[in-house]
Amino acid sequence: MKIGFIGLGNMGAAMAHNLLKAGHEVAVWNRSAAKAAHLITAGAVLSPTPKACAVGRELVITMLADDASVDAVVGGDDGLLEGLASSAMHVSMSTIAVATAQRLAAAHLAHGQRFICAPVFGRPEAAAAAKLFIVAAGPDADIRAAKPVFEAMGQRIFAVGVTPSAAALVKLCGNFMILAAVEALGEAMTLADKGGVPKAQLLEVLTGTLFDAPIYRTYGAVVVEDRFTPAGFVAPLGLKDMRLVGQSAESLRVPMPLLNVLRDHLLQTIAVEGDNVDWSAIALTTAKNAGMGR
Amino acid sequence: MKIGFIGLGNMGAAMAHNLLKAGHEVAVWNRSAAKAAHLITAGAVLSPTPKACAVGRELVITMLADDASVDAVVGGDDGLLEGLASSAMHVSMSTIAVATAQRLAAAHLAHGQRFICAPVFGRPEAAAAAKLFIVAAGPDADIRAAKPVFEAMGQRIFAVGVTPSAAALVKLCGNFMILAAVEALGEAMTLADKGGVPKAQLLEVLTGTLFDAPIYRTYGAVVVEDRFTPAGFVAPLGLKDMRLVGQSAESLRVPMPLLNVLRDHLLQTIAVEGDNVDWSAIALTTAKNAGMGR
Amino acid sequence: MKIGFIGLGNMGAAMAHNLLKAGHEVAVWNRSAAKAAHLITAGAVLSPTPKACAVGRELVITMLADDASVDAVVGGDDGLLEGLASSAMHVSMSTIAVATAQRLAAAHLAHGQRFICAPVFGRPEAAAAAKLFIVAAGPDADIRAAKPVFEAMGQRIFAVGVTPSAAALVKLCGNFMILAAVEALGEAMTLADKGGVPKAQLLEVLTGTLFDAPIYRTYGAVVVEDRFTPAGFVAPLGLKDMRLVGQSAESLRVPMPLLNVLRDHLLQTIAVEGDNVDWSAIALTTAKNAGMGR
Amino acid sequence: MKIGFIGLGNMGAAMAHNLLKAGHEVAVWNRSAAKAAHLITAGAVLSPTPKACAVGRELVITMLADDASVDAVVGGDDGLLEGLASSAMHVSMSTIAVATAQRLAAAHLAHGQRFICAPVFGRPEAAAAAKLFIVAAGPDADIRAAKPVFEAMGQRIFAVGVTPSAAALVKLCGNFMILAAVEALGEAMTLADKGGVPKAQLLEVLTGTLFDAPIYRTYGAVVVEDRFTPAGFVAPLGLKDMRLVGQSAESLRVPMPLLNVLRDHLLQTIAVEGDNVDWSAIALTTAKNAGMGR
Repeated sequence: MKIGFIGLGNMGAAMAHNLLKAGHEVAVWNRSAAKAAHLITAGAVLSPTPKACAVGRELVITMLADDASVDAVVGGDDGLLEGLASSAMHVSMSTIAVATAQRLAAAHLAHGQRFICAPVFGRPEAAAAAKLFIVAAGPDADIRAAKPVFEAMGQRIFAVGVTPSAAALVKLCGNFMILAAVEALGEAMTLADKGGVPKAQLLEVLTGTLFDAPIYRTYGAVVVEDRFTPAGFVAPLGLKDMRLVGQSAESLRVPMPLLNVLRDHLLQTIAVEGDNVDWSAIALTTAKNAGMGR
Repeated sequence: MKIGFIGLGNMGAAMAHNLLKAGHEVAVWNRSAAKAAHLITAGAVLSPTPKACAVGRELVITMLADDASVDAVVGGDDGLLEGLASSAMHVSMSTIAVATAQRLAAAHLAHGQRFICAPVFGRPEAAAAAKLFIVAAGPDADIRAAKPVFEAMGQRIFAVGVTPSAAALVKLCGNFMILAAVEALGEAMTLADKGGVPKAQLLEVLTGTLFDAPIYRTYGAVVVEDRFTPAGFVAPLGLKDMRLVGQSAESLRVPMPLLNVLRDHLLQTIAVEGDNVDWSAIALTTAKNAGMGR
Repeated sequence: MKIGFIGLGNMGAAMAHNLLKAGHEVAVWNRSAAKAAHLITAGAVLSPTPKACAVGRELVITMLADDASVDAVVGGDDGLLEGLASSAMHVSMSTIAVATAQRLAAAHLAHGQRFICAPVFGRPEAAAAAKLFIVAAGPDADIRAAKPVFEAMGQRIFAVGVTPSAAALVKLCGNFMILAAVEALGEAMTLADKGGVPKAQLLEVLTGTLFDAPIYRTYGAVVVEDRFTPAGFVAPLGLKDMRLVGQSAESLRVPMPLLNVLRDHLLQTIAVEGDNVDWSAIALTTAKNAGMGR
Repeated sequence: MKIGFIGLGNMGAAMAHNLLKAGHEVAVWNRSAAKAAHLITAGAVLSPTPKACAVGRELVITMLADDASVDAVVGGDDGLLEGLASSAMHVSMSTIAVATAQRLAAAHLAHGQRFICAPVFGRPEAAAAAKLFIVAAGPDADIRAAKPVFEAMGQRIFAVGVTPSAAALVKLCGNFMILAAVEALGEAMTLADKGGVPKAQLLEVLTGTLFDAPIYRTYGAVVVEDRFTPAGFVAPLGLKDMRLVGQSAESLRVPMPLLNVLRDHLLQTIAVEGDNVDWSAIALTTAKNAGMGR
């Protein structure tokens, strides 16, 4: 398929590469073109603008760091909306606000274009291994049409409804659930540790009983080993996601006290540890607040 | 082995029954003797007092609702301390405070008796199926000695150190982790639900990706179906456990903001829904606080 | 002085009226012109647009419900920026975000115009009685120039620095402090009430000892009497203010757990009680969460 | 009047001294007798036991650090219950749990003795100046009988009901309100400070407007000046009081999320700053959590 791919960060570059490997024709655009070098070697074409990246493509994927970046590549004279053919499709795969997804859906509709949301779960390693989980929402026919593309990047696709923004909401809920599990691990391990039980021992019991899930094994090991740098997902991006959850919670009038704990711990973590730690370093903050920690 | 078993609630009765099935000689005691009838039919002997239940036994298990009940059967003229032979062992299997475990350890030591803590994870169904997870702490030799007894009741045994109270702490951490996961599910599902995504759909994505663990499948289904009665574990007992976690947190000087959320939601749940709902009904409270709910 | 006044809600209308009474020449603009009738009778001139309201005026005051309304009257072809003479002054008196104040300051600077922030403390009764507290920030000369205008509306003026946004921040801090005091009252009174001590009795002790301040007397009486409608300040506006506090807290990396409590209680209050209750109805929510309340 | 006074800490010694100055005959007891020296010089008699301190006295005051100390001087062979004449009165003036007050009331009733609760608001300086606020509860006649004694120590007496424990509850609510105000100040000042507004400037606006109360002036100055040592009231005692509030909240089923914030901040403060800082040092913790602070 003729695909445009916009946003070549850790995640996007790996995803675009898998599209090439699956035999798709891929045009790419990135704010700093240097990041595209590796993909061009692998057969991708470099577009000078987001608009150019959309012209003549059946489907354009965006995988960007935040909502402002998405807005920046979609609108304007050089934007996606100007380049995308009528009935061609924009697939937004980054984590964006529910309100942003709704706004994008309306904009593409007004231009006679198709739009679906399909954010992913998985760290860069999973992106590289084409093992992402993809959560898609939009008209059934559009999700079906995108399926071969998704299959080149992910291990499983979940369709969660016909309204694109539903996928954005599910993705945000998922990120909230991840950080909530980290918070729980951080509090329990600090208590155990200060009470004389090694963190590794508590983790062994947890993952050996009711908590036998990737989330606890992966982040549990991180917390046991205090391994918060280099970051897989930096704390300020985690804060951004929790802000997006909070915006939905506020507009829907849903009190989420556990979300508040996560936000406060991210703020403290960033204020004290800096911008470069992993978002799971909220567990370090919990430990330090108890007089423990490095 | 000659075993005494004290405390025949939902959990204890099933555990004692498995001991009988495994061929152990079991004397039982319960505050209301009526609960013992079924076990006596199965071969148990009814003791008139906790003390009597300990006399001549190699090992006495307590499985009681709260710390006060444990204190009541251990101390006093009719208590365990008076009946247990020198070098016989008390195995405390209920969820008790760290401080209580420390006090019991000291009392038995002063009487030349052995003491280990071995609380369990698992609901009554798991107890009936001999599928409990048993977290044991105490001198190695004592844990080894109790092993055949544990194997008749559980699917796996974790040894978490030589200090009995360590097992109490690990168990409390585990219960905290369980309710933390329920809180996270409750908040995420309320947000999804109010935002137009069915709770079941969110759960499918979660358990299909990073949250593929018994804790999310079991409680996720409970929250999706609003199935908070009949209770598997009533909210006031959950509150009791969170209080015990909080006592350790306070004495160890560990701030646990997520624990606070759990406690407050249990208090509201009990105040509004009554004493008979399951502890997972904190998710109902979360929904009602957002104007949703039954 | 020749003054423009934009925004004739409960607060603005009373403030504009006091300016007329003090002998100033006042042009007014409001989205719905009907609200200006009373002021025109009193001598004000109705302007057809915000721009017109600024033309020929030395000083234009904005007193609007939210930041979007301020942006709407300042920018655009019909906006303040187009009408205000070089070296004339915009005095923003509503509660706005720190970031909005910074943006406005930059815009006016670029147009060679003066800008100060001067939000107020006081409910509509205080506005009517010219008893507002005015917190002003901006260049000293500009604050001095505005002083006679402030004196016609307020009982006391606080100058808090040369950066206009400083006044926005102080105002937001003040609103946070007010709602924090209400939250404290709500929790303490619910505890007292459920424990058998009448709320009025607790309030008498508080205001008779360390809490002898208007904030406790005013809101204490509201909570004692469960008098949350009609609203003096509706909950959604309170939520908006707390959101603005939260935005500053997030961008400055300041964890504010008490702010979170306030936001969550406002969300629950709005979700359950509706949009028309006073923001102090968070105390009703606290009571209901304890199984009490009306 | 013939008075016994038990507990000669900073507060108690000053109160007993004022009783002597008012012409009462005072017998004193303290765990470490050395603290009584100054009072004996002033005319007090030293008793060898709490019981002896009660024999022949019309009224015995206890002013002790915690509930365990009260229990220790009331019960046992050398305790108050043994020494107090029938119809003589025990006046408990320290901050104690509601449950403790109820237990004491029952014990004295069983001995035919009178009991009232009369905790105080005020720091050691206020005690020395006989400027305490006294919150009394118990049978009317008993409060009337104690009135001259109260007048020698305080500036105002509040009678809050005939059940002694009501005064304990009101006192706990008051201490909660105080620390809640400190928390609010700490969060607002950290936000202002990090946003470029000096803390003193914010405080001036607050106390000049709606927050013109001793609580804000006193603690506001403490927070502005970071003056957390020497402690007027050490953090661990503050934590003890918040625990007592929490016990009432839990047994009455009252969620108090703001109380949780206070508890967590006290725990962190003690864990990080040590046991000797003032309880208002929670404001220092708030600042440090934002990357500020000393």
